Amino acid sequence: MSRNDVSLIAIANAAGVSQMTVSRALSNKPGVSRARREEILRIAAEMGYVVNRTEQKSSSRRSHVIGLVTAELHNPFVSELVAGVGRAARTAGYELLVYSLVEPDQPPLPRVIKLMQQVIDGIIALLPYEHSYLEVLADARVPIITVDQYGRFVRFPSIAADSYAGACMAVRHLLGLGHRRIAFLTGDERLASAQDRHRAYLDTLTQAGIAIDPQLIIPGNYSLPRGQSAVKTLLTLPDRPTAVFAANDMSAIGVVAGLREAGLRLPDEMSVIGFDDIPGAAQCHPALTTIRQPIQQMGRSAVNTLLALIAGLEAASPQIVLPTELVVRASTGVPM
Amino acid sequence: MSRNDVSLIAIANAAGVSQMTVSRALSNKPGVSRARREEILRIAAEMGYVVNRTEQKSSSRRSHVIGLVTAELHNPFVSELVAGVGRAARTAGYELLVYSLVEPDQPPLPRVIKLMQQVIDGIIALLPYEHSYLEVLADARVPIITVDQYGRFVRFPSIAADSYAGACMAVRHLLGLGHRRIAFLTGDERLASAQDRHRAYLDTLTQAGIAIDPQLIIPGNYSLPRGQSAVKTLLTLPDRPTAVFAANDMSAIGVVAGLREAGLRLPDEMSVIGFDDIPGAAQCHPALTTIRQPIQQMGRSAVNTLLALIAGLEAASPQIVLPTELVVRASTGVPM
Repeated sequence: MSRNDVSLIAIANAAGVSQMTVSRALSNKPGVSRARREEILRIAAEMGYVVNRTEQKSSSRRSHVIGLVTAELHNPFVSELVAGVGRAARTAGYELLVYSLVEPDQPPLPRVIKLMQQVIDGIIALLPYEHSYLEVLADARVPIITVDQYGRFVRFPSIAADSYAGACMAVRHLLGLGHRRIAFLTGDERLASAQDRHRAYLDTLTQAGIAIDPQLIIPGNYSLPRGQSAVKTLLTLPDRPTAVFAANDMSAIGVVAGLREAGLRLPDEMSVIGFDDIPGAAQCHPALTTIRQPIQQMGRSAVNTLLALIAGLEAASPQIVLPTELVVRASTGVPM
Repeated sequence: MSRNDVSLIAIANAAGVSQMTVSRALSNKPGVSRARREEILRIAAEMGYVVNRTEQKSSSRRSHVIGLVTAELHNPFVSELVAGVGRAARTAGYELLVYSLVEPDQPPLPRVIKLMQQVIDGIIALLPYEHSYLEVLADARVPIITVDQYGRFVRFPSIAADSYAGACMAVRHLLGLGHRRIAFLTGDERLASAQDRHRAYLDTLTQAGIAIDPQLIIPGNYSLPRGQSAVKTLLTLPDRPTAVFAANDMSAIGVVAGLREAGLRLPDEMSVIGFDDIPGAAQCHPALTTIRQPIQQMGRSAVNTLLALIAGLEAASPQIVLPTELVVRASTGVPM
């Protein structure tokens, strides 16, 4: 959904108010109660609306630069998300300054956060591990939101895709093709996204009346090499599965590479589904069936929510969870 | 070469001075002439030496944050290079703040450069197009170096890999396998790297006594889709080539995908070689033979050179050109 698709009329309809009220709320003009403004902003953010530059409250104190703190640019999903945030920021008349940590589990340095705050209006945090936030970001004097990390940081509003519902879709897709022995390669279980996808795998199989076989659950860490090495475990199981759900695309691409090296034909001898829809998923051979995270929309919602906070509004909803979708390509099929 | 591999002794030997002199030069202490210090710094940078935190001149005015201005994070080669710069900066006790442009050919905004300068000690510019620099960076009040863009910006010291020599190696590899009809998929010819690789293709064939066939030179733009679409042109040529040199890995991966879609067996029916050695090159099927740019070393040299400038030294050599290497994988072989 492009920004132009979301008109004031649509927001007004969804919020049950007039277009004028929406316009006032978005531009932070008087005449709208605080509660109503928050509600309208929340609805607008959910609809992927980016505050237009001309609608923003002008303030000479603002730099119109957003800080983005991220654990690792060097990861296809993260770099897609950063690009999405950058495009949304630019559309709203903002630029991005990115502070990228060298080690994903390193906390941001307080001195750098402090320096950044001299020149930015707010922070989007894209940090996977909870301890990264403690102490450092709590002291920030500018608004903060988190992306791709939900259910934990009640202190900060957050934007994420629905990992649980997406993973349910992935498993249901395999069930629908006739698979009954479905392996699961877990993600990094320290992360909420990995926990949600794991829970969805267990719940969906259970709801389908299929008993959980712990042998089919292989510990992963969202990385390509771990996906590749998981294939050994998969192929030595006494009762081999016919399909694998890998908790993200990187590890799914590793599984595909490992299976091909072992001489298996995909999807005839094994179906593989991933999660994220990074660019590499479509380029993989066979092209990877996956669950698409709405990266563009996550970027827009993140920027919009942050701009609302910068404008002095409180986020009415502490969490925005965006829907995912199934993208069927060539790596899944009916079992032989 | 890791930082620990480069000892003061090695630098002292290369520079023909004592270890003490190297130590004084690196730590910007008195007792070394300006000319000699510059020479030692240049040699140290060429050897991949990163100035150790404890050896730096301490200055309360420094933030120990480097600014990196880049045209597009959303590109595997660039994101590798940014990660390499980040690791080298961290090793030297510096952090990175990245200003990433949304459109690769957009010039950086003067207001953002101005803001950044409030909190950084120097700028590493990773901008492909010349016009990006004019006006904006020329006004900078902190030291600037450029990476991956050489032979143009005499105003700024630069670090780059040797595109010309690397491309000669690529063509010689194909000649050595027995190929005589070798196609070339060009890069973005606005860039010095693309021009150098093109020139190397022409020179190497000419030196081998092979007449240039203009039909075998296909215009590309360093992108995967252009590589994929170039396959149509390749396969409709009356006298089909037996090998393709694509000016970078992204477009080479596109050529491989296109050839496979067309049903060709690689490398038997067509050899493909790329340039860069991005992570996707090894993951491609068949794994891509390519020319490796020394990304880690480029990062270290960039950081080291910039830290020397920050310490008040002038770069003795305006350009550092680092060597590339041939990485032979499965996408090249003898012609059938």
